[in-house]
Formats: sequence, C-alpha cells, structure tokens
Amino acid sequence: MIRLDKLEVTVLGASGMAGQEYLKLLSNHPFFEVKHITGKSSVGKKLKEVVKFDEDKIDESLLEMTIEKTEVESIKSDLFFSALPSDEALHIEQELAKRGFKVISDASAYRMESDVPLIIPEVNPEHLALIEVQRKKRRWDGFIVTTPNCTTVGLAIVLKPIYSFFGIEEVVVTTMQALSGAGYPGVPSLDIIANVIPYIKEEEEKVSSETLKILGSLEGEIIKPASISLNISCNRVSTINGHLESVFLRTKNDFSLEEIRNILASFKGKPQILKLPSAPEKVIILDERKDRPQPRLDCMAGSVAGMSVVVGRLRKASSRNSLMLTLLSNNVVRGAGGGAVLTAELMFAEKLI
Amino acid sequence: MIRLDKLEVTVLGASGMAGQEYLKLLSNHPFFEVKHITGKSSVGKKLKEVVKFDEDKIDESLLEMTIEKTEVESIKSDLFFSALPSDEALHIEQELAKRGFKVISDASAYRMESDVPLIIPEVNPEHLALIEVQRKKRRWDGFIVTTPNCTTVGLAIVLKPIYSFFGIEEVVVTTMQALSGAGYPGVPSLDIIANVIPYIKEEEEKVSSETLKILGSLEGEIIKPASISLNISCNRVSTINGHLESVFLRTKNDFSLEEIRNILASFKGKPQILKLPSAPEKVIILDERKDRPQPRLDCMAGSVAGMSVVVGRLRKASSRNSLMLTLLSNNVVRGAGGGAVLTAELMFAEKLI
Amino acid sequence: MIRLDKLEVTVLGASGMAGQEYLKLLSNHPFFEVKHITGKSSVGKKLKEVVKFDEDKIDESLLEMTIEKTEVESIKSDLFFSALPSDEALHIEQELAKRGFKVISDASAYRMESDVPLIIPEVNPEHLALIEVQRKKRRWDGFIVTTPNCTTVGLAIVLKPIYSFFGIEEVVVTTMQALSGAGYPGVPSLDIIANVIPYIKEEEEKVSSETLKILGSLEGEIIKPASISLNISCNRVSTINGHLESVFLRTKNDFSLEEIRNILASFKGKPQILKLPSAPEKVIILDERKDRPQPRLDCMAGSVAGMSVVVGRLRKASSRNSLMLTLLSNNVVRGAGGGAVLTAELMFAEKLI
Amino acid sequence: MIRLDKLEVTVLGASGMAGQEYLKLLSNHPFFEVKHITGKSSVGKKLKEVVKFDEDKIDESLLEMTIEKTEVESIKSDLFFSALPSDEALHIEQELAKRGFKVISDASAYRMESDVPLIIPEVNPEHLALIEVQRKKRRWDGFIVTTPNCTTVGLAIVLKPIYSFFGIEEVVVTTMQALSGAGYPGVPSLDIIANVIPYIKEEEEKVSSETLKILGSLEGEIIKPASISLNISCNRVSTINGHLESVFLRTKNDFSLEEIRNILASFKGKPQILKLPSAPEKVIILDERKDRPQPRLDCMAGSVAGMSVVVGRLRKASSRNSLMLTLLSNNVVRGAGGGAVLTAELMFAEKLI
Repeated sequence: MIRLDKLEVTVLGASGMAGQEYLKLLSNHPFFEVKHITGKSSVGKKLKEVVKFDEDKIDESLLEMTIEKTEVESIKSDLFFSALPSDEALHIEQELAKRGFKVISDASAYRMESDVPLIIPEVNPEHLALIEVQRKKRRWDGFIVTTPNCTTVGLAIVLKPIYSFFGIEEVVVTTMQALSGAGYPGVPSLDIIANVIPYIKEEEEKVSSETLKILGSLEGEIIKPASISLNISCNRVSTINGHLESVFLRTKNDFSLEEIRNILASFKGKPQILKLPSAPEKVIILDERKDRPQPRLDCMAGSVAGMSVVVGRLRKASSRNSLMLTLLSNNVVRGAGGGAVLTAELMFAEKLI
Repeated sequence: MIRLDKLEVTVLGASGMAGQEYLKLLSNHPFFEVKHITGKSSVGKKLKEVVKFDEDKIDESLLEMTIEKTEVESIKSDLFFSALPSDEALHIEQELAKRGFKVISDASAYRMESDVPLIIPEVNPEHLALIEVQRKKRRWDGFIVTTPNCTTVGLAIVLKPIYSFFGIEEVVVTTMQALSGAGYPGVPSLDIIANVIPYIKEEEEKVSSETLKILGSLEGEIIKPASISLNISCNRVSTINGHLESVFLRTKNDFSLEEIRNILASFKGKPQILKLPSAPEKVIILDERKDRPQPRLDCMAGSVAGMSVVVGRLRKASSRNSLMLTLLSNNVVRGAGGGAVLTAELMFAEKLI
Repeated sequence: MIRLDKLEVTVLGASGMAGQEYLKLLSNHPFFEVKHITGKSSVGKKLKEVVKFDEDKIDESLLEMTIEKTEVESIKSDLFFSALPSDEALHIEQELAKRGFKVISDASAYRMESDVPLIIPEVNPEHLALIEVQRKKRRWDGFIVTTPNCTTVGLAIVLKPIYSFFGIEEVVVTTMQALSGAGYPGVPSLDIIANVIPYIKEEEEKVSSETLKILGSLEGEIIKPASISLNISCNRVSTINGHLESVFLRTKNDFSLEEIRNILASFKGKPQILKLPSAPEKVIILDERKDRPQPRLDCMAGSVAGMSVVVGRLRKASSRNSLMLTLLSNNVVRGAGGGAVLTAELMFAEKLI
Repeated sequence: MIRLDKLEVTVLGASGMAGQEYLKLLSNHPFFEVKHITGKSSVGKKLKEVVKFDEDKIDESLLEMTIEKTEVESIKSDLFFSALPSDEALHIEQELAKRGFKVISDASAYRMESDVPLIIPEVNPEHLALIEVQRKKRRWDGFIVTTPNCTTVGLAIVLKPIYSFFGIEEVVVTTMQALSGAGYPGVPSLDIIANVIPYIKEEEEKVSSETLKILGSLEGEIIKPASISLNISCNRVSTINGHLESVFLRTKNDFSLEEIRNILASFKGKPQILKLPSAPEKVIILDERKDRPQPRLDCMAGSVAGMSVVVGRLRKASSRNSLMLTLLSNNVVRGAGGGAVLTAELMFAEKLI
C-alpha cells in the first residue's frame, strides 16, 4: 500500500456544514491534499470567514484557501469530494463524471441509481465493482461513488454482521436524530426547544431503500436488495451531534445474546485490515453500561473520534428470535464526511483512484 | 347520576409533583372536596409554600391548606387519592384499606396484584369487579384501586380499539419521555441537556406487564392478560410534559388505514357516555398534519386539557398487517392525577364510592 | 367611553409570528373587528394554514380568513395594525398615512422620527399629541403611531415611576432575551442549544434611543429625550418567551427600598383608570420570592396574561443611591401585539381613532 | 526550576465533579503524582466506577485507584488538593494544616480568612506571603492556600490589568452561569429547561468579597481590599460549561479602547514567565468577532484548554470613563481544578511546596 504521491482533491460545497466536516478530516491527510474548495454564496471568501463551528480543527492552510465557484469546466483534480445539496449534485456530479473525473459524493442524488455504488467501506466494499458497470453503461470516463444518508450508516453497520450470521426477517427502528443532521441553519430553535419533532422529510424512505441496497448482494451487474422488512420512524430531538437509533429486529435463525455480543464486537472490514488512516480500531463499540450510548457523551467514542458506532442496551425481546438494542452513530463524522473519506482511502489503497 | 353531596377526599403525598397535579384537578371539583393533604418533609407547611409550578392553577383555598403527616390512624375521609412514592404506598395503602378506607392510587406498589384493578376508565372499567374479589380475599372493608404508569396509559388507550377490532399479535414501542415523568428534582440538568438517555429504570417492565393486564379479560376472579408480544424501549428526552411513543404493531387480521382512522377517532368509553367532568370529548385526537404530535405544542390538546391522547403519523408499515403511528400522552394529566380523578369520577357515578 | 360601533381593522404582516400574536389578541375584541389580514409569501392561503403556534388561541372566524396582498391602493379600514418587517414598513406605512389612514405600528421604521409618537400607554400617553405635529408637518390626513422594541418596553415601564419620583442618572442593563424575540425561523437551533449568544443586531442601540425618547418630555412640538446615561448589553438565551433584564440604576435622589417597592407596586396609568380591555390590573407585579422572575414560569403572569412586567430581586447596590433588580417582560404580548392593541384601545377611548 | 522528584499528592473529595476535574488535570502531570483519592459515599469503589463525564480524559492508572475515606489521621502526602464541600472543608483542612500538611483548596471555607491567601497565580501571587502570617498566627506547621469561586476568577483576571493601569471606581456585572457550576446532581432539569434562574445562593456575596480581596494590596500582615464599588447579579442559564459575564466598569482615569485592547491582550503573570505546565500562553484572549465569546464554542479556547479567559464585545459605554465587555471563563477548568493546579505549580516552582 505504499504510494508516496498524494492525490489532489477538490471539495465541492465546502462552505456548508458537511463541507466543513470534510475539511477537518482532510486536514493533514496522508493520502489527499485539498487543492480547491467550492461554494455558492460564499465564493471569493476565505474558508475561515465562513466556518461556523470548530475552526480550530481545520488546518490553517485550508482556512486560508479561497472558495471558488463550483464550475465543472475549469476545476481539475484527481478526485472530487461532493458535499453539494442534492439538487445541485444532480447536475454537477454527472458533468464531472462525463468529463472523466472521479467523484465521491455524500449527496443523495445518485445513491439509488442501479449502477452507482452506495458504499460503507466495512459493509459492502465489493459493490465498488459497479463502477465498471456505470462506466460502460453511461460511457463515462469518470464515475460517481456515493455514501449513504447519516441515519442509514449506523443501522447498516450494526445489521451487517447479524444479517451475515443469523439472517434478518424484520427490523423496526425509531430514530432520535441530532440537529446537525439538518445542516445549517437547519431546524429553527423555536421548533425544537423543549420539544421533539416526529418527522424528517423523506428520511424514512431514504433509510429503508439505502439500507436494503447496502446489505444487498451483487449479482452480475446489479445489486439485489436484501429481503428484509424494514420499518423506520424518524424523529428530531434536541441534541447536537449523534443519531440515536432504537432498534428491534427478528432474525431468521435463533441466536444467543452472547453470540450477538461476539459478532458485533469483533466485526471488521477491509479498512481495519488495511489500517486505513480514518478506520477506527473497532467498527462497533459495545457499551454495556445500562444507560448508554448517549449522544452527548458518546458521539466521539473510538480510536478515530466519531467513526465507530456505539451499541448498548442489548437484550432479547419478548417476540420470537428477536433482539433489541440502541445504537449511536456520529452523523457528521461516520455519517457524512468521515464515511466519504474512508471510502476514498479504501479506493486509494485498492488503486481505484 | 344526581348526587348532591360531595365526597370528602384526602390527597396522600400532596407535596410532590404528582400530588400537586391532583390538587389542580380537584380545584373546585363538582364531586370531590379536598379535606386533608399529607406529606413528609413538608409537614406543617402550607401547600402554597411547597408548590413548584403552576400555583395559579390550584384553588386558593387549597393553597392555604396545611400539609399533615401521612398517618393512617388519624385521618379519615370518604376517599383517599394516593400520590405516594411506591415504597411508602406499599404499607400505607394496605393499612388504609384494612381500616375500611377506599384508596385510588397512582403508585406502582399494588398495580400488578392479581386482585387489584388497574384501571383506565375508557379501556377496562369492567375490571373494577376485582374490588369484590380483593375484599373477599383480603378480608378488607376498604379497597385499593390503581391507575397505570404514565407511559402505559397512552399506549393502552390506542391499542384498545385496534385490539378489539383486529386483534394484535406484536407491538414494538420506542418512547421519548418528558422530564416531568421523573418527578422533582428528577433528572439532573447536566445529564439531559443536549442529550437523550436511552434508559429509564424499571419502566420497560412496567409498561409491558401493565399494558397486558389492562387489555386482559376478566375471567371469573382473575384477569387473563392479553396475549400480545410487547417490546418496549424507553428513552428520556429534554421535553417538559408529554410522553411521545413511536409505535409499530402487527394485527391479527388485515385492516385498511381508513378503518384504523375510524376506530381511533370514534373510540369512546363510559366516561364520555356519562359525560364525567374530567372526560375529554375525544379520547383519541387524530392529528393528520405530517409532523405532529409534538410534545410542546400538543400535550394540552383536547376539550379537557391533557386528557386526550393525540395520534399522528399513521401509516401502513412494510411488514405484513402492520401499522405505524406516533402517539402523545400527557404524563402528568392523563398519565397521573387526571387518570386517577377520572377513575374516581366513574366510580362515583357508578356508586362504587 | 360608550361606543357601540366596532372599528374595522386590518392587520398588516399577519402571517409572521408578530402578526399572529395580534390575531390572538384581537380575537373577539370589544372595540375592534378584523376585516383584512395581509401577508407576502402566504397570500391566498387561509390563516389557519400558516399559523405556527397556538392556533387554538385565535378565533375560528379569523383562522378562516384569507391572507391578502399588502396593497395600499385597495385595502381600506378604520385602523391598520402593522406587524410588517421594518423595510416593508418604511414604504407602506407612509403610503397609508398619506392616503389618510391611521396606522399603529410595532415596526422600528418610524419609531425614532421626531414627529412620530412612540407609545407605552401607561408611560407616555401625552406623546400622542405628536400626531397633530406629524399631520401638520407631513401634510398627511392619516398618521403613524409606533410602539417600542420588545426589550425597551419592560425597561421603560420599570424606569418610569422611579424616574418620576427620584430621578435617574445612570442605568446599566444586561438582557437575557427569548428566542421568540427573533421571529420565525429566527435563531438556528445549532447556534443556541446549550449556549448563550452575547449579541443581538442593532438591539442595544434601539433600546437606548427608544427608552430615552419614551421617558422624554414633550416640549412644544418636540420630545426632549430623558437625560440618563444608558448602557445596554443584549444576550440571546435559550428560552421561549419573556425577556429577562438585569438592571442596575443610580437615582438622583436617595431612596429606601420600601419607597421603591411602593412606587413600583402602585404604578398605574390611563389604561388602568379607563379599565381598558387589555390593561392588566397591575402594570408591575412585585415578586419577592428570592429566585423570581423566571421566564418560563412568570411570562404569563397578571390579570391579562403577558401584559404585566414582573420585578424581583430588588436590592440596594453597593454604589451610592443605586438599586438592582431583575425584570421580566413578555416580548410577544406586552412587547409586541399587546402593547399595540392597548395603545389602540387608549386611542379609541380618547377618540383619537 | 529543575526538580526531578514529583510531589506525592492527595485529592480530597475526588468523587465529586470538582474532584474529577482535578484528576483530569493531574493525569500524567510533570510535577505531581496522585497517591490518594478520597471520598465519602463512594469509599471503596474505584474511581472509574464513579466518574460521571469524560472518563477518557483521566489517566488509566488513576481510574483504577480506590477511593479512600477522608481521614486526616491516616493519609499522608506532600500536598493535599481539596475539592471538599465547604462544610467538610472547614474541619478537615484545618486538621490537616495543624498536622503539618500543605493544603490547596478550592472550597470556600477559608477563602475570606484574613490570613489565608486567595490566589489567582497571574493576579496576586504576592499574597502567598500570607502563608507565613497564617503559620505564625495559628501555630500551624502546615497551611491552607485557597483559590476563588468559579465566577470570581474570570472577573478578577480581566479587572486586574485595567485596575493597574487606569484604576476602577465601579463595576456592574451580570453573570450567565453554566450548569456545571452547581456540581452534580446540581440544578434539576425541570427548573432550567427553556428557562433562566436569576439567583444563585450566596454567589453574589462571594464574588464581591473575593474579588476585592484578590485585587487588594498586601500591607504588612494584612490585605487591604481594593476600593471598588462592585455590583453583581448572578443568573443560571442552560449551558454546560463556561460562565459568561456581562461587565460594565468605570475607570478612575480616561482610557482609549486601543489601550484597553493592548493591556488585556498583553496581560501576563508569573505562570507565563515560568512557563508552568498549566499556564496558557494568553491569560486573556481577545475575540473581536461581534457575537463572541459564546460558552459552547469558546469555553475550551486557548493553548491550555479552558485556562484562558475570552473577552469580547469590547466597547465604550455612554457613561463617563466607562467600558463594557463580555467575558467567558471556564468554570470547571480555570474556575476550579485548573486554577488550583496552576497555583500548586507556581508554589512548586517557587519552592513553597
């Protein structure tokens, strides 16, 4: 895995909250060097003028970069990270791919296209094979690889090892999602203070379809979605970072809690084997304290802060073959920029970029 | 239903938050007149000195009452409302019943005793027949009637009509419960600010067993619990009043959403028929706006503020015969004092007290 | 004060939060009948479709009204209440006054014009004499009367009786202002959760200049501002309604705490004498409990909810002739719609409209 | 300053929140090695069993330590850090000093004793000379040195350079204090959610008297308090860490804002000169952005997280010679354990321990 040359990368939509998260993670990155950052209303400003939170976590040289206009004609780089809003992503990502550029996108625009990989590096790296399908079908020199919705990520990571070992028939999930998941300015304070909002636009549909695709199997040139009955309810709560998900699931085959504990705690993927820079030692951290995980206390857990999913409240449910647990996944790290950067690291290691 | 004489009542544990809620609801009540209020650390003080919130909702004459010691030997009244902590309730309620007094209790101590009615007036008024079983078995002149945990109430009310019409096989519930459910001082602010705590001590067990008892059928002298697979996850969130519950359920028989809407919106019980003072016109309010119910905005909905359960987000789930919805139940009104007062009103109207 | 005919009124900017507050207060009003409501992005919708909070406090007939475009050419009525944003108010209010209409405005656009009354009915009703100055100077048949910024109101009300009795040399105020003061969507939740923002745009300047004008004396055709050294620091905190203000002041003449208590508690104005519908019995409520007033608990205090200012923590300061106190003023009632409606009631009673 | 031997220290009251903060700061400390930790209800438990927050910031070896009973007879060490509640501190600290031990205490018990130094290392290190007065007067072999209340610290640090250069006549301060300032469990969530409490027991008195002592001058064997008129109002707000203070002050001599900026930004003390391990490079960080400092974003600012005071909103006030500013001081770091540890470091460097 020795490659001494860094890739030159562009971050599209760098002035939004998601974009700023990328820049934290790409600060002093061993594989990637940020050459361009783009935006819209903030074009011409320096990054440091638009950063909302945590400017101290972004490398000084990045803070001094000037935000350029998102223009497919003029900007060139080895790799494009896209943190664009979905409507802009629809046009721009395609134009870049057509022009031969490689795009890794956290936008939802292309996630569910049949020839576009939707990747969690520990869960379904084999889906990257769709890149060739995509290129052939669309006659593109470049390609688009996508990463999932922030709520999908934690769920798919926890379901994966259980699905592999015991099969899963049905899942019922109620989420309690952090404010940062809605971007900035996002949720008005008057709506959420001392309140819960039991609805997030289009979120339940995304989580369902994305999870089934990610857990699906690559058969020839298509992905056959996993055959699981998924039932999702999404809620916005007054937390800053970290989506909490209360999960009930029924397996195909009987299990013991001890077996579940073992397969969750030992779950590993290529990023751990390759020791990629953004790969946490433990993909899943089991926290057996009775009242954990908690968003404020645990959302930065793990050897790479915010990249592990924390699972607690593991217990057998009263229904047959069924399990209950609560998981916490950092929506701005693992659920957005961190997932995309880890995907890029894997592709870099595997010479796909 | 003409009874001109008011019953003289005592509120046990009046200085706590639950007790204060009783006193709001008993202010100028047409059936009941508060004669004694009891407490522990606040004995000798006037109620107005210990009231924490909303003193303006309690009748002036009650605010001037002096808190007495909770002594079974000395205090007499036609009816005792108990808002005692469960460990105190265990001894005191029994002593009162032995002495021939009638007790309606919101404490958990006796709820699951086989000969003690656990009552939601609209759901299982027929369980009041256990009073006679209890008296006979325990050789008491008095009796104990209990009301459920604040989280049970909303769930049982919504499940009842569905259970009656379609049968229910399985229920998965994730709650997002308000701070007031933990009493005062309750949850430390440092624990819950910008956070969710995915655990409430003993709550899941209570909600499961109580719901099955309430939906159970009286067969001779015992209640046969409902045969439903119940799976509950309880969470504390940063809201003031109103427990929000995200519910998935599978019925025995197929249903249409329209049928569910109809049976929920038209659900009625004896309190509505008898037009009891604390009975809301609608037991269940359907709110079809896409992002409702919300605790802060909806917890006082209905013709008797806080006594209706609000149901929203009604939708068919992806699993067979299954339904998803979100319900909101006011934990301090319907879930505590209001439920107990309504139970007393029903018993008064039916001459059981 | 017998006038049987109601005035027909228009609420400009009815779809915003401030406008909706007007409609609560004008529901079933004895003097005024709402004939038109206007808006911008919501034109053509019914009020009930755009109401954000508390729709149950607005009269059903008002909820059914259709929002019209804010057009000075077509809408006629006896009185216009303006809840317009300041930039729109600048043009529209002037055009209405030119056309002979009477405008009572809570917008900041004209507050500091030398010939425009800035009114708190209990504090400076004599400033309404500026109406004639305004008409003469501008050759308008109509006129504009304004009401102050939400933070000014509580401060000016509390300073007034002290200023009259003892004189005031210097005031230092630190505010802790509620989220509703910023309108809707207002403050992003990510900015304010578990936080305080020590800055509100232009607020300190407004509070200073407005307070001095209101406490100023009408000398001929101009108002001579009060000669007080005012020093204001404004902060946004995470409360819903009610601006809390921590006040230090130095009087000209010596005082005793008992004298201050008396003059605050007995402070009255024309609205109380005329028993106007929106006039609270007590303009200032003294709350001597050591930890009051509190925004969540006290912002609806008083005989007309939200119209009284609550004062607590009254104490002599260590500096000479100086006093400290904390006041709470409901920014959406007394500080916005309620203040404007009370002003209109006074003008109605005095036949100025 | 070369001393290779570490001092063995004991942390009294280690199981509380303040004590835990000490243990974070003493993890891998170059001068001090924790040998004993004491507590009360948690005696016999390991530290890791009682830690409430941030256990990952405490060294593993400390987490494994067993909490001992706070017994003056049996525990010996070179230095005692006291995080005891004030009532326990009163007896225990004196007993330790009598027995010849050196105590550095953050408890309030002895702060205002005339022969006890109350130290902020950058502000009044010369007050450590009181140690000899204390020993002589009380015939103790050991001594007690105290550090101030968390609200005093930020204020005294900011006043100090202004007081030295321009003199100060009068100060008016309104605080907005974080929940952690009240310890754990501290403020009940039901009291503070969507609220501000305008009162903190005994806080205003402490801040006044302590600030005047700290800014006072050592004259012979006594400290002559500074002659400043101090007027403090304390409020609890819903933030986690970081006390925000809105400050108005009048100097004796005229100043320009530029001068104030310079003296604040360049303020230094012995800890900076000696480059002590817990000394921040900048004692005061000037943040000129218009809406800073903010508790959530800035409370960990500086080269040693939480040890700098952040000052913003610097402006001339309308009164003569007067200045307004907002300061933020981390109450759990600089305002508690961090201040005590820095004091110990200074005493270690100066061979007072």
